[in-house]
Amino acid sequence: MENEPLLMLPGPVPIPERVRAVMMRQAINHRGDEFGSVYADCTRVLKTAFGTASDLFVISGSGTAAMEAAVANFGRERKIACLVNGKFGDRLFRISQRYGSASPIASEWGTPLDLVALESALESGAEMVTLVHNETSAGIRNPAEKVGILARKYDALFVMDGITSIAGDEVYADKWGADVVVVGSQKCLAAPAGLSAISVSDRAWERIADHRPFYLDLAAYRKSAGAKAMQTPYTPAVPLFLALREACMIIEEEGLDNRIARHRTLANAVRAAVDAWGLSMFPEIDADHAYSNTASAVSLPEGVLDSAFRGLVKEMGIEIAGGQDHLKGRIFRIGTMGAVGAPEILATLSAVQYSLQRCGYTPAGDGVMAAAGVLG
Amino acid sequence: MENEPLLMLPGPVPIPERVRAVMMRQAINHRGDEFGSVYADCTRVLKTAFGTASDLFVISGSGTAAMEAAVANFGRERKIACLVNGKFGDRLFRISQRYGSASPIASEWGTPLDLVALESALESGAEMVTLVHNETSAGIRNPAEKVGILARKYDALFVMDGITSIAGDEVYADKWGADVVVVGSQKCLAAPAGLSAISVSDRAWERIADHRPFYLDLAAYRKSAGAKAMQTPYTPAVPLFLALREACMIIEEEGLDNRIARHRTLANAVRAAVDAWGLSMFPEIDADHAYSNTASAVSLPEGVLDSAFRGLVKEMGIEIAGGQDHLKGRIFRIGTMGAVGAPEILATLSAVQYSLQRCGYTPAGDGVMAAAGVLG
Repeated sequence: MENEPLLMLPGPVPIPERVRAVMMRQAINHRGDEFGSVYADCTRVLKTAFGTASDLFVISGSGTAAMEAAVANFGRERKIACLVNGKFGDRLFRISQRYGSASPIASEWGTPLDLVALESALESGAEMVTLVHNETSAGIRNPAEKVGILARKYDALFVMDGITSIAGDEVYADKWGADVVVVGSQKCLAAPAGLSAISVSDRAWERIADHRPFYLDLAAYRKSAGAKAMQTPYTPAVPLFLALREACMIIEEEGLDNRIARHRTLANAVRAAVDAWGLSMFPEIDADHAYSNTASAVSLPEGVLDSAFRGLVKEMGIEIAGGQDHLKGRIFRIGTMGAVGAPEILATLSAVQYSLQRCGYTPAGDGVMAAAGVLG
Repeated sequence: MENEPLLMLPGPVPIPERVRAVMMRQAINHRGDEFGSVYADCTRVLKTAFGTASDLFVISGSGTAAMEAAVANFGRERKIACLVNGKFGDRLFRISQRYGSASPIASEWGTPLDLVALESALESGAEMVTLVHNETSAGIRNPAEKVGILARKYDALFVMDGITSIAGDEVYADKWGADVVVVGSQKCLAAPAGLSAISVSDRAWERIADHRPFYLDLAAYRKSAGAKAMQTPYTPAVPLFLALREACMIIEEEGLDNRIARHRTLANAVRAAVDAWGLSMFPEIDADHAYSNTASAVSLPEGVLDSAFRGLVKEMGIEIAGGQDHLKGRIFRIGTMGAVGAPEILATLSAVQYSLQRCGYTPAGDGVMAAAGVLG
């Protein structure tokens, strides 16, 4: 196999050649007009994808850095209610513990969130709510709009992790009342790993903590972004900004609505295959919760050994994900994020179908053809 | 001018083509063996450049992130004595203020540090000392070894910013007793901006704070680096790691001693030109302090307007730096960092000499030929 493996993971994802190519450029001075216009292009496109007119900054650090920036700048010494139904919700809880008085409102991974318990926490004085919109660890999409309504009702700040939904699914930060929202570069944006972005509403600015971290001090980001040519407070990861700008240009060219529709179709194709095979999607959904459109989590059938199964898929040049933490060996996950299309999905589902058979599971029907029926 | 400008700044610096080229690669899974070996190559070479056998981690964030990691993990609620004779010493002081009880031991920028005052602070119970080894804002190299001896005498931790000296000048972290040392990627390593590295001595590990930040939690870095294939705790900036590995390979090929000698020669060439022109180096040095070998700060002669002068140099395709903060308009700075050699220095000094003349200063002699005499 001479090609790089095809990454059908819930991030990192394949990066279009023109996005990678711009990183070949010689270093530029990040205190000049050109860098300022690169940064401005990124924020313009990202604001559209976030559904916000608020301030938005790009951070040289991964999504976790942006999650921490959200909590550290606005949650210090506050009561924080953390909605948890997967690994990343738990991460936001663990970050919140380092800065405020954090309480988890936890459901089993991949099951609906307890919004009744959230309302109780808000009644009891929670000043901030954290939510992972699209929980890839369990393949579930959480009800951001409903959480936003509750947060507003009790005048709490709403911090939303949109790391794996923004630019791949519908996100309306302003309409939902999401005050601080973050995204990562290596997911639906289809840019290289290493950058994140964060939006900050006026309501959040009014409540910014006096005591803030240094590298992630969002007041410093605001000041530098307000310079004549947009700047970052500290040295930015210049090649990654160039790549992110190119990825944003691709998003503009495709059109955000088209891009979201494409993600939805790809996820529908995966679900059609799962259904045809006689397997089950892992998450337990209801009227408020949905299967993720960017990462499908599928229950591994009895008797199929995860390492052997994904090992076979990998031998065909394709990487899919297993479960994380206690879901290891219980699920497999297929990313439908970023720049991928029908060829990548068909190849992936073919390799999965073959590997399931080889590992002792006899699919009920032909999932590949079922998926083709959705894609064609 | 079709080429990119030649960046003769105290970072960012020109990046060799083979370092940039590796970033063109398709995304790889950062939880796999290949990424682990990339990370291991980086740490092996960087440990040599740091002069340390301690643990060393690469952080997806710029030098400031690593500075904060040093202070936040080891300085929380401690008494911190911060040596300051330039902008970056001041930055370490400002970071230290956010975590501990920090006192500046300040000299005028570009003048010797007050080691007598440092010893008083240590006698009075300072538990940590911060030092910028090579202060590019003022072009001065500070006496790290002497600071280390004092820190050890009073059993204080020694945090050293080696951002602009490591891999360009002699650094011996272990020999000097520097417990926590940081470097940035876009300086003497000649890699793209966006990564930093940090070493941690056993003495420092013994004193790690219970309450740490999340993204910069060095205990999490240690745990992930100890995995079968080296990992980072959160998503790393993969293209920058690939580039840093390539930059490290170049350092190994050149040989660290040769590389340091080259930096010294280039700085000597700049000083010879300054001397021939009848100008003065900006820093005030003594037996303990030296001119920086990686960034030369030169006093701008009376009557020469900084913006006009550097504007002319830039018209010839070369960017040099001015002064920062209160040194704006008073000095200019030439970086001699990373992958540059005689051609870049000769071009830069020629453009500087011409621009000084055009701006009304008549050089006493031919600095370009004086520099050539050093380089030839």
